[in-house]
Amino acid sequence: MMREKISDGMKKGLVHETGMIAHGRGEAFDYLLGEKTIPPADDAAVAAAAYLKKAKNAVISINGNVAVLSARECVELAETAGAGIEINLFHRTAERVEKLVKFMEGAGARDVLGMEADARIPGLEHDRGKCDRDGIYSADVVLVPLEDGDRCEALKKMGKQVITVDLNPLSRTARTADVTVVDNVVRAIPNITRHIREKHDWNGIIKKWDNRKCLKECLEYIEHRLSSFY
Amino acid sequence: MMREKISDGMKKGLVHETGMIAHGRGEAFDYLLGEKTIPPADDAAVAAAAYLKKAKNAVISINGNVAVLSARECVELAETAGAGIEINLFHRTAERVEKLVKFMEGAGARDVLGMEADARIPGLEHDRGKCDRDGIYSADVVLVPLEDGDRCEALKKMGKQVITVDLNPLSRTARTADVTVVDNVVRAIPNITRHIREKHDWNGIIKKWDNRKCLKECLEYIEHRLSSFY
Repeated sequence: MMREKISDGMKKGLVHETGMIAHGRGEAFDYLLGEKTIPPADDAAVAAAAYLKKAKNAVISINGNVAVLSARECVELAETAGAGIEINLFHRTAERVEKLVKFMEGAGARDVLGMEADARIPGLEHDRGKCDRDGIYSADVVLVPLEDGDRCEALKKMGKQVITVDLNPLSRTARTADVTVVDNVVRAIPNITRHIREKHDWNGIIKKWDNRKCLKECLEYIEHRLSSFY
Repeated sequence: MMREKISDGMKKGLVHETGMIAHGRGEAFDYLLGEKTIPPADDAAVAAAAYLKKAKNAVISINGNVAVLSARECVELAETAGAGIEINLFHRTAERVEKLVKFMEGAGARDVLGMEADARIPGLEHDRGKCDRDGIYSADVVLVPLEDGDRCEALKKMGKQVITVDLNPLSRTARTADVTVVDNVVRAIPNITRHIREKHDWNGIIKKWDNRKCLKECLEYIEHRLSSFY
C-alpha cells in the first residue's frame, strides 16, 4: 500500500523520482526492524513529544514522501502539538510546493506554509535553502521527517532543536538530529501524537535524553534480529 | 551515477517504476556491506562461475534494472560463459521487452532472447511466466540477478540450478537460489566473469558449496559492521 502511494504520488507530481529510491532504502531498513515500532524508537517518540510540547514555535517540515504517506497523521500531530506545517522540498519547484500545499489542505491542514519562501536556511544551495520567515526560519523546534543530512545540519547550525524520523540509524540525518525516531513515518507520527496527549515529566525527559545511546540501541536491536535469521 | 542510470532508465521506459523502489532497497543493503565485495560474496562468485562453467545450456535473465546498471558486464559474462541472454520481466509488456532487447544489442549483445515468449514457467501468473522455449525454459542453469522470490522458486521447481545476485541476504530469492551472490550487480557480474577465466577445481567447488553457510557469513559480516558504528 505504501509503495502504491509513493508510486501514485510520483505520477501526480507530488513525489520526486528520487523519492521512490529513498522509499526503497526505507523499506529495507523497516524490514530489518521487523516493520514495527521497536522499544528505543518508542523512547525517541516520547522525547520528540517532549521537545514539541516545550517548543515556543514548532514547525513540521513536509516533503512529497511524508505527505503521500502520512498527511492526515501530520495534520493531527500539528493540531495536537500546536505546530505549524511547512512544505519544504529538496527538489523544489513552485509547482510542486503548490500541489503539496493543496494536498495537505485536502487532508485537513490549515495555513500551510512554504509558498512565501521569503527567507533562507544559511549554508544550503539557493533553491534548497528556501523557507518561510514565519515558519521554519523562525521556529525553535523543527520536525523534519525523511530529511537529508545537509539540511538537518544546516538547521542545527541555525540553533534549532531538530527532531527527525529516519529508518536508517546510520544516516547523517539520524546522527545530526537532537531526537531521531528510527521508525516508519506512518507509525512514528501517530505515536508522537499519542505521547503528547499523555502526561509526562517533559523537562525530565529532555534533560535525560541521549540520542546517541538511543541510536546504539536501535543498531543493537537490528544486530540481534539479524543473528536470529539463520 | 547508478541512481541516475535507474532514473534515466525509468524515463526511457526501460525500468518499471517499482524498479526505482527496488533499487533503493538495494542501496540500503549495499550501504550495510560498505559498498564493496565482501569475502563471502566473492566465494559465491566463484561458485557461480563453477555452475556456469559446468552448465550445458546457461541463460542470463535480464530485467530493466540489470540492463541499465550492467548491460556491458552481462554481455561480457555471457560471452565468457557461453551463456544466452534473455529479457525476462516481472512487469512484462512487449514494448518494454523490445526496448530492452535493443538496449542490450547496443551494449554488444547478439541473439537476445525474450521476444518469442513461446513457453511458460509453471506456477506463475500468465504474463509473468512467459519465457522463450530456447532460452530460460530449456536452460539447466539460470542466472537471475535482482529477481523476485516467486520466480526464483518457480525456476527451482522446474529443476534448474539457479544463481542470483541479491544485496539482501534475507530475501526469499536469496534463500531459494542455489548460489546467492550478496553483492551489487555492477561488482558481482564482472567478478563472476573474472573467476570463470581463472582455473579452478569446478567440480570440487560445486560439491562443497553451501549457500546457507554463505548467507550466514554475509549476515555475520553486516552484524560486525553495525556493531562498529557507535
